[in-house]
Amino acid sequence: MVRAGSASAAAGPTLAVVAREAGVSVPTASKVVNGREDVAPETRRRVTEALDRLGYVRRPRFDPARTPGLVDLVVHSPESSWSGAVLRGVEAAAYEAGLEVVVSAGVTRTRDGRRERGWLDRLAARGSSGVLLDPAELSASQYAWLDHHRIPYVLIDPAQEPPAGVVSVGAANWQGGMSATEHLLGLGHERIAVVAGRRRTLYAGARVAGYRSALASAGVRHRPEYVRHAGFDETIARLRMHELLDLPEPPTAVFVCSDRMALGAYAALAERGLRVPDDMSVVGFDDLPEARWVAPALTTVRQPLAEMAGTALRLLVRMMQGERPEGTRTELSTRLVHRASTAAPPALRPTA
Amino acid sequence: MVRAGSASAAAGPTLAVVAREAGVSVPTASKVVNGREDVAPETRRRVTEALDRLGYVRRPRFDPARTPGLVDLVVHSPESSWSGAVLRGVEAAAYEAGLEVVVSAGVTRTRDGRRERGWLDRLAARGSSGVLLDPAELSASQYAWLDHHRIPYVLIDPAQEPPAGVVSVGAANWQGGMSATEHLLGLGHERIAVVAGRRRTLYAGARVAGYRSALASAGVRHRPEYVRHAGFDETIARLRMHELLDLPEPPTAVFVCSDRMALGAYAALAERGLRVPDDMSVVGFDDLPEARWVAPALTTVRQPLAEMAGTALRLLVRMMQGERPEGTRTELSTRLVHRASTAAPPALRPTA
Repeated sequence: MVRAGSASAAAGPTLAVVAREAGVSVPTASKVVNGREDVAPETRRRVTEALDRLGYVRRPRFDPARTPGLVDLVVHSPESSWSGAVLRGVEAAAYEAGLEVVVSAGVTRTRDGRRERGWLDRLAARGSSGVLLDPAELSASQYAWLDHHRIPYVLIDPAQEPPAGVVSVGAANWQGGMSATEHLLGLGHERIAVVAGRRRTLYAGARVAGYRSALASAGVRHRPEYVRHAGFDETIARLRMHELLDLPEPPTAVFVCSDRMALGAYAALAERGLRVPDDMSVVGFDDLPEARWVAPALTTVRQPLAEMAGTALRLLVRMMQGERPEGTRTELSTRLVHRASTAAPPALRPTA
Repeated sequence: MVRAGSASAAAGPTLAVVAREAGVSVPTASKVVNGREDVAPETRRRVTEALDRLGYVRRPRFDPARTPGLVDLVVHSPESSWSGAVLRGVEAAAYEAGLEVVVSAGVTRTRDGRRERGWLDRLAARGSSGVLLDPAELSASQYAWLDHHRIPYVLIDPAQEPPAGVVSVGAANWQGGMSATEHLLGLGHERIAVVAGRRRTLYAGARVAGYRSALASAGVRHRPEYVRHAGFDETIARLRMHELLDLPEPPTAVFVCSDRMALGAYAALAERGLRVPDDMSVVGFDDLPEARWVAPALTTVRQPLAEMAGTALRLLVRMMQGERPEGTRTELSTRLVHRASTAAPPALRPTA
């Protein structure tokens, strides 16, 4: 636990003054400072505002002179090829910056599902200089704790619009949705469906918006029944592909908003005896290694994951040095990688 | 740099005494203690023996009371699905042990090819308690430095037989080669080739030995022309597959000693218009995720990588606590995963 008492006189008001200002007890103020979960949101807000108003200086328990040049990378699933690319980018950029990377998975909950407290304590004990989050999200109190201890953090490809002022790095999702759809239009497709990720994520929203913009630019009618959401789940994507094939006018091409979901679409097509790309063109998104391994190799929109991760590390280093990045979101461009899963639509088409 | 002078009087003989005992200068003795490269092997041996003889206590620069519960994992290529599985296993076991994992790639050389010194310095500065190496190998002086500073280390799946006393975790490669070959024999194949990894590696030697044992047990003649080495390289494996197909009596089945090499074999077969498994059965080794993604899905020998990595972490923890593991090599068993790339040999076969 970070002790509230470690704020020395020189550092400004004591916790007792903060508690009085916020109208709470000292133990409650201490809980907020220490990132504890058992504080009502309204109470947390009052204490945080009081801390800011009084200029209470948060003193991390670690001694900067001892700081061993560590940054934390929190990943969602260390085994995925996504995380592998992120780790490669972070590790290489950290090496350039003379830093080393502590990798943790799943730090918001303990492995048996309880709230995870230990990670923040260990983070403080070892003197981590900053945190990168890929796309693992922290709890509100964990973010508050980091803010409070002035440990900077950067989100890599966050699923949701981050709170104001939070720095993140992502891909140009809208542009990617555009280029996937333009590629299919260019091959002569007009009946183009989309299997999107989880509703209300940044990725899904922007990619579907790019798809719709491309259709509109080409003067192709938008059909709401051609837009399906599958929550970035391969199995659900397979079901959505079946639903699209069951439509009175099935599509001749589908833009599937992740490579893993595209594998689900491949499975559904194989179950129907349909061939890619002869009977159905498929475009994925991500360009993970599996896109090259599947047969036929998947045409997909490349996100530069390792570069995004390296950019996040470099932004973090600037924040560790006290700078503020110019913008809060940095977007790296995406590009279409044309492989073997897309072709002109079948010659004989029912009227579109 | 770790200073030789940090060995206090209470800790035993000074470096000057050691230098005299070894018949070298104090700066030379200091170089050995600090893991420097610019010492002749014979000189290093003399100094190391003198250190041991005199009971010179190596005092790491870090203060154990400050040790923040870090272990180092050094990986060869962080982006590979192999490393992903290893990281998952290490991270989960470290979490159970209350430790955290610093991940580094390529620490024997700097990114521009020079000898890497910084990693050991940083390792000491941050007080890492132990090191796991996956299969990344250190230089002789780096091993000597770790030994000298009593920082324990465990090798995960080393390519070469480690020096006496070095603790490692691997897979039952011989057993895996046996079961791959027995599977093909059980399907009725007799003309079974093997595309092995780099000569003189533990993996390649043991897997090919298992293959030969299975053939011998079944009374099937061993054909030296059926054994090809491809250095664990996908492109070379493709060439080796072509060579096997060009033999007067080509095989009807091939055991390829890694999944990635099996992808190379698939490519060669596709180039010849041959189908898997109708024209050629293929068995891989590893069971990386790509084995499930390729078409047809690859029958392969599963190495329990995450479990091997977790076992390595647990052995390391015991060594950090001063225990010695019972044996120096722990082997986890392998098992055949039957998928779609193996079948009975073509009905019409030239005489074997």
